[in-house]
Amino acid sequence: MRVLPTATTDMSDSAASLTRDELCRELEALWRERIPLTRALGVALRRFDDATLELAADLAPNVNIHGTGFAGSLYSISALCGWSMIHLQLGLRGLAGSIVLAEGRIRYLRPVTEEIVAVCLFDDHDAAFTELAHSGRARFPLTAKIASAGKVAVEFEGDFAVKSQA
Amino acid sequence: MRVLPTATTDMSDSAASLTRDELCRELEALWRERIPLTRALGVALRRFDDATLELAADLAPNVNIHGTGFAGSLYSISALCGWSMIHLQLGLRGLAGSIVLAEGRIRYLRPVTEEIVAVCLFDDHDAAFTELAHSGRARFPLTAKIASAGKVAVEFEGDFAVKSQA
Repeated sequence: MRVLPTATTDMSDSAASLTRDELCRELEALWRERIPLTRALGVALRRFDDATLELAADLAPNVNIHGTGFAGSLYSISALCGWSMIHLQLGLRGLAGSIVLAEGRIRYLRPVTEEIVAVCLFDDHDAAFTELAHSGRARFPLTAKIASAGKVAVEFEGDFAVKSQA
Repeated sequence: MRVLPTATTDMSDSAASLTRDELCRELEALWRERIPLTRALGVALRRFDDATLELAADLAPNVNIHGTGFAGSLYSISALCGWSMIHLQLGLRGLAGSIVLAEGRIRYLRPVTEEIVAVCLFDDHDAAFTELAHSGRARFPLTAKIASAGKVAVEFEGDFAVKSQA
């Protein structure tokens, strides 16, 4: 386990040795302080257990001209959900890493007409963690979904590139 | 050519019979009034001729924890650039339509470390306009790119679904 580092330019360093609740609070503070758009999105961490991360945001600040979820907001919240899942998974393992989204794909299947809730599941990524430990780099493909009126409305897939930090 | 409609729930109706400059000003007003996230992005219409649309936004409100362009901001500005290009092209033709992004794909090739400028080119879409005139619906695949330090940093592809409005 790494000890808490002093302030660096990459706050993902600060995840080590924290409990799950502490990790979640630290993550939300990180969004607010270092990713200004998250304040405009109004996004909050709704739920995290080891396998599931849910982010939520009111619809009002995120509407398009049709009064439904703006494509850019839906993507941003989905991508943030994937990025945050990896940030938390590294933190739970006492690891520090730089996480960058390399590629994103999103399908808008139906309009989002209610509170935006993005859900990301973390399945078996043992091979990626082994690769990260051996080479210092790994790719984590993740998906996130947003439902509306009980049906899947948005499907996001992202390829996240993680680099270990000493 | 359609005459200017009375106020409706879909402002894309209001494009008919306007000059290019009027279309651009109307579009920016539409963003500000009906897509709140565009205010947080700080995005502005930089340039439009019949074939090229450029949107620009300061980096500061759009940074990630690395101090470079946030993936969500880069996607949102790219997608808005594509959507706006179709909105303007319909307006130039005196057409009214509902424009919805059905699917988006984006590759982040290098960090964006300067003002974010998204560029969308409008090539030959005659077949799509013919389809729109005949069936009332058409798909417009569009790309947008963002450069940084003189190299392509972001490549966006979107499939926009357009539906004619009576």
